Amino acid sequence: MKVSGLGEFGLIDLLAKMIRNNGVDRLGPGRPVIGIGDDAAAWRGDAFIQLATVDTMIQDVHFSLDAITWPELGWKSLAINLSDIAAMGGVPAYALIALALPVETPVDAVAQIYEGLIKCAREFKLAIVGGNISRAPQISLTITVLGNSPENKILRRDKARPGDVIAVTGYPGSAGGGRETLMKKLDLKPKATRYLRDAFLHPVPRVAAGRLLVKHGIAAAIDISDGLLADLRHICEASRVAARLDISRLPLHEALQTGFGKKALELALAGGEDYELLFTGSAKKIDRIKAEIDCPLTAIGEITAGEAGKIDLFNAGGKPVKIKKSGWSHF
Amino acid sequence: MKVSGLGEFGLIDLLAKMIRNNGVDRLGPGRPVIGIGDDAAAWRGDAFIQLATVDTMIQDVHFSLDAITWPELGWKSLAINLSDIAAMGGVPAYALIALALPVETPVDAVAQIYEGLIKCAREFKLAIVGGNISRAPQISLTITVLGNSPENKILRRDKARPGDVIAVTGYPGSAGGGRETLMKKLDLKPKATRYLRDAFLHPVPRVAAGRLLVKHGIAAAIDISDGLLADLRHICEASRVAARLDISRLPLHEALQTGFGKKALELALAGGEDYELLFTGSAKKIDRIKAEIDCPLTAIGEITAGEAGKIDLFNAGGKPVKIKKSGWSHF
Repeated sequence: MKVSGLGEFGLIDLLAKMIRNNGVDRLGPGRPVIGIGDDAAAWRGDAFIQLATVDTMIQDVHFSLDAITWPELGWKSLAINLSDIAAMGGVPAYALIALALPVETPVDAVAQIYEGLIKCAREFKLAIVGGNISRAPQISLTITVLGNSPENKILRRDKARPGDVIAVTGYPGSAGGGRETLMKKLDLKPKATRYLRDAFLHPVPRVAAGRLLVKHGIAAAIDISDGLLADLRHICEASRVAARLDISRLPLHEALQTGFGKKALELALAGGEDYELLFTGSAKKIDRIKAEIDCPLTAIGEITAGEAGKIDLFNAGGKPVKIKKSGWSHF
Repeated sequence: MKVSGLGEFGLIDLLAKMIRNNGVDRLGPGRPVIGIGDDAAAWRGDAFIQLATVDTMIQDVHFSLDAITWPELGWKSLAINLSDIAAMGGVPAYALIALALPVETPVDAVAQIYEGLIKCAREFKLAIVGGNISRAPQISLTITVLGNSPENKILRRDKARPGDVIAVTGYPGSAGGGRETLMKKLDLKPKATRYLRDAFLHPVPRVAAGRLLVKHGIAAAIDISDGLLADLRHICEASRVAARLDISRLPLHEALQTGFGKKALELALAGGEDYELLFTGSAKKIDRIKAEIDCPLTAIGEITAGEAGKIDLFNAGGKPVKIKKSGWSHF
């Protein structure tokens, strides 16, 4: 059946039932007062620092239905928001889902999108408390995630200091490699294709890592969804500092290296859509975090007192390196 | 200049400056910790009941650039969300703006959209704390508004009781009349056209009225954006009650009556996009509210103990009436 056959309110009922039957309406930290089904969602607040972020996924801009499955679309749309909460060191709590779609979309497709959303919400223990459904020429999801900081400490872009070591989680470039593999229909080995595809379509936000950074007194962090270089620049500009990056230390996943050769480096620096955390802090703190963290963590450079926002790249021999593309912009 | 010339981050800088220069980043009740310019917005929370709602305006679905001005588009996109907070009896506090637009959109158009957003935010004293900008084939705004209830009392859909009087603010049907006037290029008198056009394109959310309902102990309310009948049905279904509506008492604005004749009634019942409040309560409470409220308020029927969700319409002589169209659905 198409959504045109079910109608707006029939579709809302179906999705609200899926959310309730999976217990996802009750996962938030505050006692729920009203979930889906009134003019607004309502819950008991708390006096911690509150966090809020919003992100959009639009068909044929951020995703192609040729490549992504419906559940992956739901998962990724929520996961990219959770990454922003992770980059603040916070705990995700509530989500509102604004879904827009053509009238001829199959109801089953919408249900599968919600399966992915619900799976992600359960995994990261947040409640889906509300949303909106509209007709539109193409499918899009705009999700708002609210969270909080029980320690009242947050990770900011403007707290990097000269002498800080720069560290990054995971393997930057993997998502960009997955995007290229799918768009250009590259013929890589099945295992490599699977890894890169997952990195692009099923990102896992670093929520636990963000919490660990707060625990260890890190002050400056960002997620590298715009690309490692562009987001490091955001940190440097906000903090009025410069940075030195040793490109030989960039952690390139084997699948990216074998699949992309020399281009792997460019993808790691500017591929975008890596929902990894980049942060800065003392070498001692970073060593302690490395001993506890549940994902790869690599020191890749250091913050310096140079011109605000300037990033110098060096190779293993200490020689300066230049690259062309520096990040992802929508326009 | 087009947004393609300014780039994503240039545009974000421009809009963030407009928000800061108008003081709109500091209007929320909680001490701001971080506004626009980090991975997520952050502010100090409170232990009241929290409210959250999201709504979307999509080009050629919810608005036409032939009819609406850029500032009106900004105003309306925020106002329709504030209406949901009003329908809960809450105080608006924070907004996040997700904007999607084609690369060839003029920068000046985006700035004008934000003028309308900022004007509305200032009028209703809420802070714009964050957002997102994406490329898209058409313009859309998805806005999330957060609010709270300092009394820890909210207006709900499921609290209507048999014997309650049903009351509505303003003149239902005016927005629908404005939409028809613009879409069909009707040749009404200039004053009528202006009134109806404003009702459709520049709705004023009933935030003060919602607060007044809470003050006077009203428990059940909804905004009638889906149409008066459809939203009264939402209340009746949620409350497991029925309703009797006296259509001769529906407050029809003179502009609607003279412009639309017999069709005025249908627009009032099912036109949709009226951001008025419909609520139920004792006759005594409604009289007290009427004495204090700053907008028209009319008793139009009563809640009965009949079949859940059933609405019977009567004319002035007490005779049953049937109508065809009963509300607005997206699909």
